Amino acid sequence: MHSEDTIAAIATAPGEGSISIVRMSGPDSLAIASKILRCAKPPLTERPSNTIVHGFVLDQGRDVDEVLVLVMRAPHTYTGEDVVELQGHGGTTSARRILRCALQAGARPAEPGEFTRRAFLNGRLDLVQAEAVLDLVRSSSDRAAEIALQQLEGRLSQILNSIYDNLVTVAADLAAAMDFPEDELHPQIGVNSTNTLKIVKKYIDRLLATWNEGRILRNGAMVVISGLANVGKSTLLNTLLEYDRAIVSPIPGTTRDFIEENFCLHGIPIRLVDTAGLRPSDCELEREGVRRAREQMLKADLHLYVLDASQPLSPVDAANIADRPREKCVVVLNKADLGLRVAPKDLPGHDAVVTSLLEKKGLDQLRMLMGAKIEISEMPALGEAGSHIAISERHRSLLLKAASEVEAALAMLNSGKEEDQFLASETIRTAVEYLALIIGRVYHDSLLDEIFSRFCIGK
Amino acid sequence: MHSEDTIAAIATAPGEGSISIVRMSGPDSLAIASKILRCAKPPLTERPSNTIVHGFVLDQGRDVDEVLVLVMRAPHTYTGEDVVELQGHGGTTSARRILRCALQAGARPAEPGEFTRRAFLNGRLDLVQAEAVLDLVRSSSDRAAEIALQQLEGRLSQILNSIYDNLVTVAADLAAAMDFPEDELHPQIGVNSTNTLKIVKKYIDRLLATWNEGRILRNGAMVVISGLANVGKSTLLNTLLEYDRAIVSPIPGTTRDFIEENFCLHGIPIRLVDTAGLRPSDCELEREGVRRAREQMLKADLHLYVLDASQPLSPVDAANIADRPREKCVVVLNKADLGLRVAPKDLPGHDAVVTSLLEKKGLDQLRMLMGAKIEISEMPALGEAGSHIAISERHRSLLLKAASEVEAALAMLNSGKEEDQFLASETIRTAVEYLALIIGRVYHDSLLDEIFSRFCIGK
Repeated sequence: MHSEDTIAAIATAPGEGSISIVRMSGPDSLAIASKILRCAKPPLTERPSNTIVHGFVLDQGRDVDEVLVLVMRAPHTYTGEDVVELQGHGGTTSARRILRCALQAGARPAEPGEFTRRAFLNGRLDLVQAEAVLDLVRSSSDRAAEIALQQLEGRLSQILNSIYDNLVTVAADLAAAMDFPEDELHPQIGVNSTNTLKIVKKYIDRLLATWNEGRILRNGAMVVISGLANVGKSTLLNTLLEYDRAIVSPIPGTTRDFIEENFCLHGIPIRLVDTAGLRPSDCELEREGVRRAREQMLKADLHLYVLDASQPLSPVDAANIADRPREKCVVVLNKADLGLRVAPKDLPGHDAVVTSLLEKKGLDQLRMLMGAKIEISEMPALGEAGSHIAISERHRSLLLKAASEVEAALAMLNSGKEEDQFLASETIRTAVEYLALIIGRVYHDSLLDEIFSRFCIGK
Repeated sequence: MHSEDTIAAIATAPGEGSISIVRMSGPDSLAIASKILRCAKPPLTERPSNTIVHGFVLDQGRDVDEVLVLVMRAPHTYTGEDVVELQGHGGTTSARRILRCALQAGARPAEPGEFTRRAFLNGRLDLVQAEAVLDLVRSSSDRAAEIALQQLEGRLSQILNSIYDNLVTVAADLAAAMDFPEDELHPQIGVNSTNTLKIVKKYIDRLLATWNEGRILRNGAMVVISGLANVGKSTLLNTLLEYDRAIVSPIPGTTRDFIEENFCLHGIPIRLVDTAGLRPSDCELEREGVRRAREQMLKADLHLYVLDASQPLSPVDAANIADRPREKCVVVLNKADLGLRVAPKDLPGHDAVVTSLLEKKGLDQLRMLMGAKIEISEMPALGEAGSHIAISERHRSLLLKAASEVEAALAMLNSGKEEDQFLASETIRTAVEYLALIIGRVYHDSLLDEIFSRFCIGK
């Protein structure tokens, strides 16, 4: 499985930091590092695993950066191969120059996710764990990070493997029963298989139920601010973000493009979108803004509809509010400081909050209501106590297919016909294949390409 | 000098990366790390220096992240103290959670630049080297990075120390000569001192000459794009940046706020500013844009004045061009694809380039001209061959003071009067104090606060 070439990439986030890391993995990591480094003796290639060496990276005799060199030898490394990390001074320029030296000395630029891909190919992680690495890097809340780490540590893999093993056993039992049709255990095998399949089905359903939480934790809940022009939408965005992101002016139509920003509300990552004011306009730019706003609104997990409550409820506002799904909408009755001519009771059946963004009033209530509306259902108990799982879209689509195979197999077993029992065994094997694809017991390069291309380079 | 408390901070840049680092420094680094880690035996506190240990960070018994632990023991560490680095999975959430654990276990959040400040206080770096750490992190071009690294390695310190030592010797010689006025070496001391001071003065002047390069490499050269509305300013910005940063539309006044972006031109970092179109406007927002544009223009190292060359030269354009300093201005004659009614010869004494941004013509010529206009003078030879130095604003202001003291001392020595010789010795001591402030042989907490507050946290 071991790769023949050695890959290199910058492993720290770009931008201003104190330390940046260039990481190499592959059989020539140590040799390449030796070529570009000036260190104290003994030479790098003779250093034991898990040691740190001080040195300088050289480019044609000139110092490029002062570094700490981390020597980690196969097989107990992230990738399972020889790994060298060069820790240089922070900033992008140093890291970029060190990487250039490594490439000139014979390393190949790593593809996105290639370090983790190698970890998978070398059996250090299964596919579900490898995916968790990306989730952990991308996690924008404690809750998301915890779920990702548990997945990385193998909690989800354990359940999937248990489902896999149970399905394999059932398929084998059914096949064996057919080989010895006169066996007296025969009826018992049917009952056992049915029971196991029912439990498996329950487990799959429980996993499927975690998908929505996974989706929100991975992608963030999309909250779209809309409303007529000049009612305070951008002010609401700035207030929720707690800094001035959007230009605010008394001139209607100030926000032309839609603005998207991220923040966390009660541990839930939120993608907050401020749309252009919904007013008909002769201006080409503004019309484009309104069109984009409508596009965003269709994808919303929650709508914040803002209106000027110091004015009587306009027919346009009333129509817009009626247009939004009630369970996904909070109406913000803003400008309460100018008097209140629309009250929550005027919008029966809708959740509404009276605010004065100018005086920063009503915000706690708004945040609480937003949290309650987005709040994801509590996790169904799964595996050992305290474990927390949230499957991804990829897991879901394969689990749905597996579930329908399991259901079909159950129906076949219920029919009591012998030929159906044979078919059930085959059907279960199909479900097993879907499980194998999730865990990565079976994979195609195209699947790996798809999964790892979403990683950053250096991971 | 050693600190009594242990500091901790995230040391990698925020954002999506593969690896993030939480760094601790201080006497309790190892003890604190042991409290929050689950690792294989032997315990962390018994591990030798410069070793890497695999483990898990724990928060109240729950795993927070899988980490590599770097153990580095005083005194041969960055800060000169015990240092522990926890390398976790990338992304901000993991790092933030690991840091929280370290703080709960007794570490104190590091102030900006506090690791480097400790390195300075523990004698691992002088002040000029410490400043180079920040320059290296911030460097946005190879050239800037090389200069910063040479400064970190001590090239500038070496010259400053040599100036310092020479001045101390001269001051001591002069003082000794006064103590023994009848000494026959007296006249010779005067001549020697004068010669040394002249050489010192020459060195200081050479250092001062590197300031402009330093300023541009540290802050970037500011290039301001201006011109009337709808001549292609935003298109020029996008073209130079090689991606679509600004919204471009046929509607005049599309760019309201000014846009600033960075890129590198021939190794020189450039801050490119696109201003709002300079047209009188009734719109409050646009008027504000024009006001801000004028503000930016005063700070420019180079102006790119764009006009529509398919139309005859307008009096407003002619006046605007005349308004800009010739040596700092390039006129971009755009829209050449629509015909050319203004040619470079119509703007005698100005550097002008014919372009068609639409057809991507004339761009190489424009880039070359920009580079030539900004190009910083070649470095005066200083110290050993190949060394490259660029002083900072702080160095400059202290060196200017030192230079004027040295000049004053030279004048005093020339006067031939004995009391002036005494004054010269005192004057040189003042120059020595300025040098001491640059290198950090003498410092006040307020100076350190000022220098290190510009660092990021974790450095």
